Amino acid sequence: MSVVGIIAEYNPFHSGHEFLLNQARLVAGKDPIIVLMSGNYVQRGEMAIMDKHTRAEAALRAGADLVLELPFSTAVQAADLFALGGMDQLYRLGAETLVFGVENANLNFAYLGSKIAEIPQNHMDFNDYSQTYSTQYNQMVAREVGFEVNAPNAILGLAYSVANYNLGSPMKLHPINRIGAGHDDILKTTAAVQSASAIRNLLLHNEDKTQLSQWLPKEEAKKLMAQEIYPNWDLLYPFFKYRVESASLSELRDIYQMSEGLEYKFKQEIHLANDFTEFLRHVKSKRYTYSRLRRLSLFTLLNVTQDDMVDSFNDEKLILLGFSKRGRQYLKKNRKNFKTKIISKVDRREAKSGSLGLQVRVDRLFEQLMKDDQNFGQRPIEV
Amino acid sequence: MSVVGIIAEYNPFHSGHEFLLNQARLVAGKDPIIVLMSGNYVQRGEMAIMDKHTRAEAALRAGADLVLELPFSTAVQAADLFALGGMDQLYRLGAETLVFGVENANLNFAYLGSKIAEIPQNHMDFNDYSQTYSTQYNQMVAREVGFEVNAPNAILGLAYSVANYNLGSPMKLHPINRIGAGHDDILKTTAAVQSASAIRNLLLHNEDKTQLSQWLPKEEAKKLMAQEIYPNWDLLYPFFKYRVESASLSELRDIYQMSEGLEYKFKQEIHLANDFTEFLRHVKSKRYTYSRLRRLSLFTLLNVTQDDMVDSFNDEKLILLGFSKRGRQYLKKNRKNFKTKIISKVDRREAKSGSLGLQVRVDRLFEQLMKDDQNFGQRPIEV
Repeated sequence: MSVVGIIAEYNPFHSGHEFLLNQARLVAGKDPIIVLMSGNYVQRGEMAIMDKHTRAEAALRAGADLVLELPFSTAVQAADLFALGGMDQLYRLGAETLVFGVENANLNFAYLGSKIAEIPQNHMDFNDYSQTYSTQYNQMVAREVGFEVNAPNAILGLAYSVANYNLGSPMKLHPINRIGAGHDDILKTTAAVQSASAIRNLLLHNEDKTQLSQWLPKEEAKKLMAQEIYPNWDLLYPFFKYRVESASLSELRDIYQMSEGLEYKFKQEIHLANDFTEFLRHVKSKRYTYSRLRRLSLFTLLNVTQDDMVDSFNDEKLILLGFSKRGRQYLKKNRKNFKTKIISKVDRREAKSGSLGLQVRVDRLFEQLMKDDQNFGQRPIEV
Repeated sequence: MSVVGIIAEYNPFHSGHEFLLNQARLVAGKDPIIVLMSGNYVQRGEMAIMDKHTRAEAALRAGADLVLELPFSTAVQAADLFALGGMDQLYRLGAETLVFGVENANLNFAYLGSKIAEIPQNHMDFNDYSQTYSTQYNQMVAREVGFEVNAPNAILGLAYSVANYNLGSPMKLHPINRIGAGHDDILKTTAAVQSASAIRNLLLHNEDKTQLSQWLPKEEAKKLMAQEIYPNWDLLYPFFKYRVESASLSELRDIYQMSEGLEYKFKQEIHLANDFTEFLRHVKSKRYTYSRLRRLSLFTLLNVTQDDMVDSFNDEKLILLGFSKRGRQYLKKNRKNFKTKIISKVDRREAKSGSLGLQVRVDRLFEQLMKDDQNFGQRPIEV
């Protein structure tokens, strides 16, 4: 038995995630499963398709014992920082084993993680401006470890492994073979497991939503079907365009990760682009991945500056979204020993700076679109 | 005969404005009538109901000889700065007589203007925080000149008169009795002249638009009827809310006229207000008029800082929106002697700072809603 940690987005939570939780239960036994879940914004630089509280509840009903919110400053990051921030927090919460889904669980992640972590830093100073950082990183990893890792979950798994090694290997790594659809697979209506992105596509393209209940927990499917709005960049684009057009160059320059003169490119391309896809296509260069540019656009939309991110990093607190009975007991027993701060009730004074301040502020746009308050007045769900 | 100057908004241009232009022609004779018109944002702190080019064209067809755009930094100001900036520019353009509409042209504006201008400055340092500045100003004027001026056009007329006096009385003042509806009168469908605000109300409340052609020049009425959108604060409110919620307090503090801690009030009230009227009502105090707060909201929406306004003031150029044959001849003959710069074609390099930079930037939101580019690629209309 072992306290299990999981890092997840659940955007939305579906039967594949349920399968992973069931596998995690075999590892945890009577110990709790702790989930660190992204809030209302996800790693690829977009708004989540449904609110964090509903997604957390679905995970709790499927066997998670604690669901805590991964702070924005870690959740909306490239794989390395996402993994490092998440692993660090899980370890502070007492997790002993990281359970994660991959395409091929036979890879020796601990070994690969240590190999990659030991690659000298100067091997990572890529100067080839004709390729994205992540392409060059993957090629370098391929050279160093002898084979190429390019399945999306394996890449993330490697990032967890590297982070774990860099943190002094506090956790055991327990990869589990994902079942059903691959990470970005399109919808196959006959399958019992769909990818989250296939489900989001179905919602965005307004197809028959009654199918959802095949792949999602009933309660979550019901809430999702009842939503008037499914957040996506097309919906956000008018706000984004307005912001880029009205911001000064120096304001754009202050945005987190606005580097190498991208503010000029943003200003230049925004006026003529009719939608977000067109904008991204025009801003895209060999140097940056779409994910990087989508995150940068999200930071711009949400007015997240370099200073905001540093303030948040330096003061990351975890909002408790919900718990089971086992989770509550675990919290009660261990809370005072955690090397991280857990927030059960977001307080207005505390939420003026740091990670809470940032989270409250970025959630405002989510609230504007979706109506329900996301932080103030919310309490953890008890399942 | 006398070169006539008119300061106007034409929001929209209607038969009352036509009447005033006809009266102005009697004063001008064969000399030109120069109109300084607000652009796509008007004095009371809102977006104009239709674009500046169409409004300028209507004025030209009704007898104006030159229509130039009053820079944003003068157009969106309280009466005193609006009048001072406008009068100063008209005088630089060679205008000899200011023609303006009032409720009662029998008032001796030149005399009243000089009287008010001579009121010692310390009489205007109002410390009564329980009343708006403009209420206290009007009361003070009433005390000093012996009777109260409270009709909206008379107040503006007085502001012109004070400005003229302060500029050394370069222009003759020629008040003309307005005909038909008062400034803010509601629609009386049988009248031949409507107030601009009654016409805007009709458009916003989507009543029978075919009536428009009774009160507006045919071409303008046609364009107005064909518009898909009639700009108004309800339409702008989602952008405004998003901006206030996502801006930092220090960004709000930089906004022009954000004084006395209003940024906290903005942050506090924006979250719960469902529409702009509700927001204004909650922010309203005895200290500020609705117009002042509406302008402040507009500056916030358009991200106009104190620095932006100062830069614009110090470098005000006039965009030429259109001219008649007489206007063109006048320009040709006098342009090099004008003590102000006239812009026939907005150049990208020139439009990086100063009044052009600000105008191009604030017009971006207008363009986003109304689709047509307002500055780049536009040339003066020749009528």
